[in-house]
Amino acid sequence: MSHQLSDISHQTSDTRYQPSGVRNDAAPIGVFDSGYGGLTVLKELVKVLPQYDYLYLGDNGRAPYGNRSFETVYEYTLQCVQWFFEQGCSLVILACNTASAKALRSIQQNDLPRIAPDKRVLGVIRPTTEVIGEYSENGEIGILATKGTVNSGSYPIEIHKFFPEARVYQEACPMWVPIVENNEIDTPGADFFIKKNLHALFHKGPKVDAVLLACTHYPLLKDKIQEHLPIDVKLVSQGELVANSLADYLRRHPEMEQRCSKNGRQQFFTTDATEDFDNHGTLFFGAPVSSTHIVL
Amino acid sequence: MSHQLSDISHQTSDTRYQPSGVRNDAAPIGVFDSGYGGLTVLKELVKVLPQYDYLYLGDNGRAPYGNRSFETVYEYTLQCVQWFFEQGCSLVILACNTASAKALRSIQQNDLPRIAPDKRVLGVIRPTTEVIGEYSENGEIGILATKGTVNSGSYPIEIHKFFPEARVYQEACPMWVPIVENNEIDTPGADFFIKKNLHALFHKGPKVDAVLLACTHYPLLKDKIQEHLPIDVKLVSQGELVANSLADYLRRHPEMEQRCSKNGRQQFFTTDATEDFDNHGTLFFGAPVSSTHIVL
Repeated sequence: MSHQLSDISHQTSDTRYQPSGVRNDAAPIGVFDSGYGGLTVLKELVKVLPQYDYLYLGDNGRAPYGNRSFETVYEYTLQCVQWFFEQGCSLVILACNTASAKALRSIQQNDLPRIAPDKRVLGVIRPTTEVIGEYSENGEIGILATKGTVNSGSYPIEIHKFFPEARVYQEACPMWVPIVENNEIDTPGADFFIKKNLHALFHKGPKVDAVLLACTHYPLLKDKIQEHLPIDVKLVSQGELVANSLADYLRRHPEMEQRCSKNGRQQFFTTDATEDFDNHGTLFFGAPVSSTHIVL
Repeated sequence: MSHQLSDISHQTSDTRYQPSGVRNDAAPIGVFDSGYGGLTVLKELVKVLPQYDYLYLGDNGRAPYGNRSFETVYEYTLQCVQWFFEQGCSLVILACNTASAKALRSIQQNDLPRIAPDKRVLGVIRPTTEVIGEYSENGEIGILATKGTVNSGSYPIEIHKFFPEARVYQEACPMWVPIVENNEIDTPGADFFIKKNLHALFHKGPKVDAVLLACTHYPLLKDKIQEHLPIDVKLVSQGELVANSLADYLRRHPEMEQRCSKNGRQQFFTTDATEDFDNHGTLFFGAPVSSTHIVL
């Protein structure tokens, strides 16, 4: 089933998330990622909150963000957020760990009050860190992520705010994104790098009993990772956590909820070629994707 | 020995490449790459033509270009070329196969006549293709490159202009750049992907007896590749070919040669963080690198 542009108009009468109706200027929820990875998050958003409209933007023309500097990630992310605002979006999800780690705070604290005080930008780190401790029995948590996310220290810092006793071990897995993007998932080369990084993680934290995939590409490697994990270790992807957190946010913020349009549509935009985006995107989204090119 | 900013002023009196002196407005030769790879070319340029000044620009903030669309590569490359022109450079080398394949012709034919008719932009593909046939005994040539270079078809097309009888087989090796950039060169994971791509190349062209590394990152894998190649197959990197070709070009174009300054200096610029550039760059350049950040 294609999710794209399907007009599920009866869902506009679903009032579960419409405490006081829909405003005339309601617009889609913006979902941003540097590339395709955020589509694994969008997939879960559509599953949990199918009634909303979503605009997805992949900054593929400048991806990957993983190893870029703070300044560069901030500059690119802000440009993309402004693009969403120009499309009318009131709520933008940075479905990208690197952007959430390196750009979100500056945008929330410095830019939003100035350029769009009535709009909101949310990330994927807080929705994850406020619940991840509940997946561990002994408080020993493993984080698998890109170099950029690991070096930012965002996950240990944020997890300790919610679970001060947790012991958090991180491992950067810079080969995993190329493995996914080049569809080398089912090769011995993928096995080598997955085993190498898991071995390094458990060398640092031998008692880790909950492992978080803190990169939106990694869910495509989930089966492989599970194969190489001890059986009693829980493996957690972010998409579902982020979707549940957004549902909760919209329940608690009816004024924002009313500004989200509800025709059950998804539209896709990319800063690079649409053909590549559609081919790759379909793999990540799990349903056909048809994108439009934009220049920022 | 650091090549950077070393003032080898006696070299300004070296007249080998100064048929009629140096002009007052002489400026460095520009060397461009999307990232670090072009430093393997610059290394050879400095070896063969040490008397010239070079400005190196890595567009690391938007690297890698390998899998990006024609339009995106063209747009980014033109911006970088214009930056070199603003620095006074009269001669710019695109030391990047993707940019040479996807952007060079448009820049030479459409942009230069309009924006800078007296300046020149040269690539790395022609200097390579006009000699590669001489490395093969039987005319069976293998090309290893990124997806973007392979899909552009530039190497087979250009090689056939100089060696119409040659049979050219290509293989895209999209995991090799991540392997180099993440310093996974000496791992079984690297072996797996190198063997996989070489096997695929020789499956297409079993009689190939000359293999060209048509990506500026690949020289760092040369020893590994050699290990997995039949002993009678010649393995050719581009850097030396490009340096010899530039020496020849400058001999044949004294009017351009006079516009190249000669203090034996190299300066490095990047569109991303300088610390990362300097760490990685030193590996590729084979000597210490100290860069300056620029915004395009």
